Amino acid sequence: MDERTALRMLAMDLPGAGDDAAVVDGTVITTDMLHETTDFPAGTTRYTAGWRAVGASLSDVAAMGAQATAAVAVYASPEFDEADLRAFLSGARDVCTAVDAEYVGGDLDGHEEFTVATTAIGDADDPVLRSGATPGDAVCVTGTLGRSAAALRFFDEGDAERGNDLFQFTPRVDAGVRLRDHATAMMDSSDGLARSLHQLAEASDCGFDVAFDRVPVDPAVDEVTNDAADRRECALHFGEDFELVFTVPDDRVDTVQSALDVDVTRIGTVTDSETGVVADGDPLPDRGFTHASE
Amino acid sequence: MDERTALRMLAMDLPGAGDDAAVVDGTVITTDMLHETTDFPAGTTRYTAGWRAVGASLSDVAAMGAQATAAVAVYASPEFDEADLRAFLSGARDVCTAVDAEYVGGDLDGHEEFTVATTAIGDADDPVLRSGATPGDAVCVTGTLGRSAAALRFFDEGDAERGNDLFQFTPRVDAGVRLRDHATAMMDSSDGLARSLHQLAEASDCGFDVAFDRVPVDPAVDEVTNDAADRRECALHFGEDFELVFTVPDDRVDTVQSALDVDVTRIGTVTDSETGVVADGDPLPDRGFTHASE
Repeated sequence: MDERTALRMLAMDLPGAGDDAAVVDGTVITTDMLHETTDFPAGTTRYTAGWRAVGASLSDVAAMGAQATAAVAVYASPEFDEADLRAFLSGARDVCTAVDAEYVGGDLDGHEEFTVATTAIGDADDPVLRSGATPGDAVCVTGTLGRSAAALRFFDEGDAERGNDLFQFTPRVDAGVRLRDHATAMMDSSDGLARSLHQLAEASDCGFDVAFDRVPVDPAVDEVTNDAADRRECALHFGEDFELVFTVPDDRVDTVQSALDVDVTRIGTVTDSETGVVADGDPLPDRGFTHASE
Repeated sequence: MDERTALRMLAMDLPGAGDDAAVVDGTVITTDMLHETTDFPAGTTRYTAGWRAVGASLSDVAAMGAQATAAVAVYASPEFDEADLRAFLSGARDVCTAVDAEYVGGDLDGHEEFTVATTAIGDADDPVLRSGATPGDAVCVTGTLGRSAAALRFFDEGDAERGNDLFQFTPRVDAGVRLRDHATAMMDSSDGLARSLHQLAEASDCGFDVAFDRVPVDPAVDEVTNDAADRRECALHFGEDFELVFTVPDDRVDTVQSALDVDVTRIGTVTDSETGVVADGDPLPDRGFTHASE
């Protein structure tokens, strides 16, 4: 089985596995693992690694419309350099502080490859699932897309400063909480906008009609791409961005745009499932960032 | 820094890092990582791996006197074999069921070495810390010690059935909850009884006077050891057992023995800190199972 097939199997078997986080008695919980070869390109500081690894789990809590309360991490590495570990902890703490959650520690593990496993928890009595999108709803995203794709190009070019800067994102916890009473379906964009739309479509049994020229492409993408196809790839498929992708009733778009501290862009409309996921009139491939292991 | 020094640094920096689990607003949370080279000897089934990895985190929740509510895991592997994954999930689910918690899924990660990161959460408004032992208290353990040391010998001898059987332990969640109103300090024995006593002594600023012949050595240890020193090593230092080590006021020993479903053995008495940790009149070395990375 490839990772995606195995994940589908998990989702069938476990009630909590079909959303960004599981829900148990009003507590949401989510866990992730990131590691050097696939997630931390050369030049990534340990501060950024701490920020990003913990931030990825906080983003999953945000995607449920939950208030993140705490996060933990396992720091696994062949050696424990004090400066590295302190930098990691600072990043982990700072991203928690940015969303009013508490970083409460974790564990260390001697491991050949630098690997981080993070878990975040949050409170939500009535979490937003992926399954409530209804034809006629607007589909929106927070912030901009393509940041991480652009970051990777900067790392590749040796501009670690830009790479690290773009790699540190604000998990949309505050936005998620404010969207809780409005959004009909929600998830984060970590698998890329295209796959997020397909996953929402599958969970909600709906389709989407989006326009690429409405997608808020991060300005950094324009710095690293020269042609339109590459730009589109960075914004729609690369993923590893942690924005919220959500649906709201058409007449609530203005309300949520003014209620949130982050930009909200309407990129299209929810359609029925027979239409599928369509961008600018053509089917949008259900394709995202492919891990090295797949 | 070696892992232990780094852990001390963590404990200084993070309020939650000095106990088996961190506490945030009445929720305890704890995370662990286990991996093939150090934790799953050849012959360990994926069912046992799921049971044991999730069980290790549930044990940390138990050690706080908290009711475990849920657990998650990241299953990281070079490939995702359906039978392996299903076996792992069954083990993870079964150990949760054994302690009335819910296994709510997790994530997959493509990873060179089979690695499992687990997190468990639980409820405790008034958790038991490591820091409340008082001279005159009794020091007790649940169950038996040396199971995992014996299991490793069975694995080495090619008797995987015995190894797997001994490797599956019942996390002492029920005992921990029942001990909450009685224990003055508590932790689990995963680092070995000797190091657990030293850690309790350090956190509580006390000493311990224990008698080795009172330590409940698992009968399996007698099957795999031929001399007294080896037997003692298995029971006191090897660790990787998940029993509770706790202190209670002297006059409560009978009460807790009858309140718990598991055997409780008094192995000694809490002394003042100047005495240190003493077994049979001699200082007990602060030495446990040493991970390959140390």
